[in-house]
Amino acid sequence: MLYFMSDYTEGAHPKILDRFREQNLISMPGYGDDEASAAAKEKIRAACHRDDLQIAFLVGGTQTNLITISTMLRRYEAVVAAKTGHVSIHEAGAIEYTGHKVIELEGTNGKLLPETLSVYLQGYHADGNREHMPFPGMVYISHPTEYGTLYTKAELEALSAICRGYDIPLYLDGARLGYGLMAYDTDVSIDDIVRCCDVFYIGGTKVGALCGEALVFTRQNMPDHFLTLLKQQGALLAKGRLVGTQFDVLFTDGLYWSISRHAIDMAMALKAVFQEKGYPLYIDSPTNQQFVALTDEQMERLGKDVAFSFWEKLPDGRTVVRFATSWATRPEDIEALKALL
Amino acid sequence: MLYFMSDYTEGAHPKILDRFREQNLISMPGYGDDEASAAAKEKIRAACHRDDLQIAFLVGGTQTNLITISTMLRRYEAVVAAKTGHVSIHEAGAIEYTGHKVIELEGTNGKLLPETLSVYLQGYHADGNREHMPFPGMVYISHPTEYGTLYTKAELEALSAICRGYDIPLYLDGARLGYGLMAYDTDVSIDDIVRCCDVFYIGGTKVGALCGEALVFTRQNMPDHFLTLLKQQGALLAKGRLVGTQFDVLFTDGLYWSISRHAIDMAMALKAVFQEKGYPLYIDSPTNQQFVALTDEQMERLGKDVAFSFWEKLPDGRTVVRFATSWATRPEDIEALKALL
Amino acid sequence: MLYFMSDYTEGAHPKILDRFREQNLISMPGYGDDEASAAAKEKIRAACHRDDLQIAFLVGGTQTNLITISTMLRRYEAVVAAKTGHVSIHEAGAIEYTGHKVIELEGTNGKLLPETLSVYLQGYHADGNREHMPFPGMVYISHPTEYGTLYTKAELEALSAICRGYDIPLYLDGARLGYGLMAYDTDVSIDDIVRCCDVFYIGGTKVGALCGEALVFTRQNMPDHFLTLLKQQGALLAKGRLVGTQFDVLFTDGLYWSISRHAIDMAMALKAVFQEKGYPLYIDSPTNQQFVALTDEQMERLGKDVAFSFWEKLPDGRTVVRFATSWATRPEDIEALKALL
Amino acid sequence: MLYFMSDYTEGAHPKILDRFREQNLISMPGYGDDEASAAAKEKIRAACHRDDLQIAFLVGGTQTNLITISTMLRRYEAVVAAKTGHVSIHEAGAIEYTGHKVIELEGTNGKLLPETLSVYLQGYHADGNREHMPFPGMVYISHPTEYGTLYTKAELEALSAICRGYDIPLYLDGARLGYGLMAYDTDVSIDDIVRCCDVFYIGGTKVGALCGEALVFTRQNMPDHFLTLLKQQGALLAKGRLVGTQFDVLFTDGLYWSISRHAIDMAMALKAVFQEKGYPLYIDSPTNQQFVALTDEQMERLGKDVAFSFWEKLPDGRTVVRFATSWATRPEDIEALKALL
Repeated sequence: MLYFMSDYTEGAHPKILDRFREQNLISMPGYGDDEASAAAKEKIRAACHRDDLQIAFLVGGTQTNLITISTMLRRYEAVVAAKTGHVSIHEAGAIEYTGHKVIELEGTNGKLLPETLSVYLQGYHADGNREHMPFPGMVYISHPTEYGTLYTKAELEALSAICRGYDIPLYLDGARLGYGLMAYDTDVSIDDIVRCCDVFYIGGTKVGALCGEALVFTRQNMPDHFLTLLKQQGALLAKGRLVGTQFDVLFTDGLYWSISRHAIDMAMALKAVFQEKGYPLYIDSPTNQQFVALTDEQMERLGKDVAFSFWEKLPDGRTVVRFATSWATRPEDIEALKALL
Repeated sequence: MLYFMSDYTEGAHPKILDRFREQNLISMPGYGDDEASAAAKEKIRAACHRDDLQIAFLVGGTQTNLITISTMLRRYEAVVAAKTGHVSIHEAGAIEYTGHKVIELEGTNGKLLPETLSVYLQGYHADGNREHMPFPGMVYISHPTEYGTLYTKAELEALSAICRGYDIPLYLDGARLGYGLMAYDTDVSIDDIVRCCDVFYIGGTKVGALCGEALVFTRQNMPDHFLTLLKQQGALLAKGRLVGTQFDVLFTDGLYWSISRHAIDMAMALKAVFQEKGYPLYIDSPTNQQFVALTDEQMERLGKDVAFSFWEKLPDGRTVVRFATSWATRPEDIEALKALL
Repeated sequence: MLYFMSDYTEGAHPKILDRFREQNLISMPGYGDDEASAAAKEKIRAACHRDDLQIAFLVGGTQTNLITISTMLRRYEAVVAAKTGHVSIHEAGAIEYTGHKVIELEGTNGKLLPETLSVYLQGYHADGNREHMPFPGMVYISHPTEYGTLYTKAELEALSAICRGYDIPLYLDGARLGYGLMAYDTDVSIDDIVRCCDVFYIGGTKVGALCGEALVFTRQNMPDHFLTLLKQQGALLAKGRLVGTQFDVLFTDGLYWSISRHAIDMAMALKAVFQEKGYPLYIDSPTNQQFVALTDEQMERLGKDVAFSFWEKLPDGRTVVRFATSWATRPEDIEALKALL
Repeated sequence: MLYFMSDYTEGAHPKILDRFREQNLISMPGYGDDEASAAAKEKIRAACHRDDLQIAFLVGGTQTNLITISTMLRRYEAVVAAKTGHVSIHEAGAIEYTGHKVIELEGTNGKLLPETLSVYLQGYHADGNREHMPFPGMVYISHPTEYGTLYTKAELEALSAICRGYDIPLYLDGARLGYGLMAYDTDVSIDDIVRCCDVFYIGGTKVGALCGEALVFTRQNMPDHFLTLLKQQGALLAKGRLVGTQFDVLFTDGLYWSISRHAIDMAMALKAVFQEKGYPLYIDSPTNQQFVALTDEQMERLGKDVAFSFWEKLPDGRTVVRFATSWATRPEDIEALKALL
């Protein structure tokens, strides 16, 4: 079986496992107060060229989203997102379970465009009944988006300017941030992310770690008593070293970036194969997730040898499916897939 | 000043105040276990031609919505509503505060059409990722809608059939139910409401009461320990007689229906005045809420003598405003308004 | 049947019903922005000798408690109360439903003594694990307590000093505040309440109103967007005049105080009757709630003609029951009861 | 520095790291649908001698508690626990954050005794106001308790019988279950746990894993759509293999039991050292946590070379501290400590 189902089907980059072994018997305090976490934070700050970033390590993406949103919003505030945003549809109502509405705006290829946001916020502030409505208190975007697409630097800057104009934090879900920043033609750098966003996370689970995400606050805006808040939502690890160690490795010698670039190389090879074989791409994705529309016959035939993911049904009966590459994808996997198409 | 701002700007129908006085010194047990509430329930059952209805009295509309939805849904379920639904936008995120998502579908003149619902539910059930999504666990409609429009009997029956096909309760918000059922051309009766809906409420606050809504469960489906649930959300009145007495009066000798009809008569006179004077109706409403698009100049001029409500801004710069009639509107109010237009 | 079950078994003081009638057809804006509410607030400020108090009107006691606590606490904070506090045991978990713990301390005759509070807070702040514990963020007391007892001025001042030392608001539940302040021997005045508490409420439901409580913030500390927060919890009345009018009447010519004093007179007569007839008082209550321990035989016999409330079971098999007087209790009711004892 | 601070200061048992490496490049589906998790579940079922157990893997203890409690309770229900229970005081209000009260009963050396539970439940069911109170809907115990103590088989059976009499699930927090079952004199076996409890968890984080707990439902009572519920609370791992693999290793060839027994051996040696050196034990613990009362002078002196944990302040000024052993404690650590005492 060829696995292109997702970017979380293998374990961890081998260097992470090596480090676990090296540090295994070193005693470290619990709850994130350990030297591995401290080292990881320093390396992330260095990679972001900012020594004043506040960082917390969490286990997974939905957990990170629900904690960030629920701890930063006031009780009467909602988060604004594209309809196709992960928080809007694919987190089982996790945000709402914390008591906050997700205000869903129309997306464009998975992105929340500045114009869309601006029109909405103007309308809200002109609405005479707004005291009876949930207040827009944060804007959520993902980069890459759920469709693999990327914001341009100009779009990010425009979103940031709008948010600051209304004094609303801009939050970027970077579950696959490495794959976004290592795309071939993007003009967005990690510095742009740091500058434009008030809070964002660097995804580990889907970029080479066994688990873990690094949540970064860019404006000394980590909520007070964040450790207590994490505990309250069941997100505080006794062995904080578990995630700390992984990010320490990922941000040593640029490993995070090099394995991300590898996944992009594999994705572009995959994309070329689909195009060569005449499989219609559903969307033009520059990142590690590629979306192809398959007929039922194709799905059944390919499904025997290849694992991929359901994405959505098209009105014409075809199904959009996702093929994902990762740090673990090998050139021979692409070749093997090509032979099957 | 002429008041057309809403249908809750006056006190209560005088017969309600009379009854308060008559029963004032009669001692009654608290928490809804009083004879006035019992009598009111009997009269509502009679008006609905069903002696097995379970009824609870609540204070207001948002309270009724949030309690009904939060007590009937399982934790992983969401309520489906039109984008323009009261629970979607005008309740300050009350539903989400109870932990549940409002899944917003496109509305048509304020209504959630059966086709829209059906397409959504089919898509949801065909989605391979649906275990990661909020489950549609209830359908919310309002009748009249937030735009004063009404479902037809055929639409209600279709919605009901869809809901039953998926084993999802259909909930009807009847904040202005009297005005809906007493509209001139509607083919929907209270019996249709009872038959098609699993739960609905009969609005009192906007139809002649000082406060209060009657929540009706049609299938012996009142959640267990409902009194405790009400208490938990701060919605259990110590003096249950407050709402019970009012519904007892409203459902004595058809008062609820006759005052509703009066408001419809006034609303149709109002509509005729707008049409005669050349004011464009924003929507063709058969009920007590009439929506007119005004220029800034008109708004300013009229605003000096008439109170109306902001509804929404139009792209052309005009503003949609609402004029509402009620049990308390007098023919001379309509004449006075006419003179001002 | 003689009703001593509670202080909410009759309607409202007749002057309230008169005022409803007088103002019935006067149009007023909704959501609390009406002139009756404005007048009521002015009168309460005058009665409290403070013109800077922020006031909101709510419908009932549990609602007021859950809203005050949930809107004033930060997410990681808990409210501290006596074990016998209303919020601790008799509100169906309403506070916890909003996400906050009630930290229960030992009470003394229903009161939370300053020493008890002080020892707890010192222990909490000395605890090395306190970041893993709910933070004490507010102190809740009731006056009169659930056992009819009263704080002394010295106790109130001591509680207030402790709270201010830790920068924690002191919240006083005054569901029966009138009965507390009109007790014969109390040295506590409304001015003391205003001075010592950061927030408190003046109970209407149990002191002559059909419904309603007046929530008073003493330090310009009403939470931002309080109207939106009320809406979100289903506590915003469309017809704000309902409660506003009642408090306007209750605070006109000292009616609130005179009817409270009447209830105290009746309660002291009742107490004298129990003592004269040899019924053991369970607690020495100076307010309108009197607690008597009855044998099963006494309960059954009296229960035929008198309605009273269950309070608790004693280990010796007897039952503590409550007899309450109110603005509506007549001297002849006491005489009639006496004849039955 | 000697580390006796807790049982989570080192990494994982080396066999776990070996297995990670062996399986690292094997592709497995996400969200717990992997073969490592399947194998682990089979081995746990075998160790429990029951092939019908339902099992879910979670990341940490507080997370497991809050998910179990919040998914099994109905909305109006509360969980009953000892005052010293982890859910009562050391989880930052996590249970209340999910909307449920923790009803705290007096504990005895950390245990909730059957008599205490029974008296409370009888009182609750005899209380005439119980519809206004949170319902006891689950009983929580920990084994070992927060003070290292253990229930006897007779106590467990009595608690179980009481719970079944009231149709309330009994939930056992087994964060350190291995250390409880491997204590020298306990008469409780894993079979007794399975038989007496409706749900319990087998702790991994504190017993040799990097992270992870195995939640076991004994009566086919796993809540419906548990995966969705996990997702909603941010507890669903993308790489379910992370915890599955660890439990697969821990339950291969009895590793879980043998490393637990090793920790007990070390703890008993530690206890003997304290006794020999005249340090008063605060409680007689048969498990891996030992509690000693130290003077300030002792704390300061020892603190220079040994890491231990704060537990509580005693009225006489001394401090109770905790020394914990684990799978990673070496005999020479005990000797080194002895030399320092």
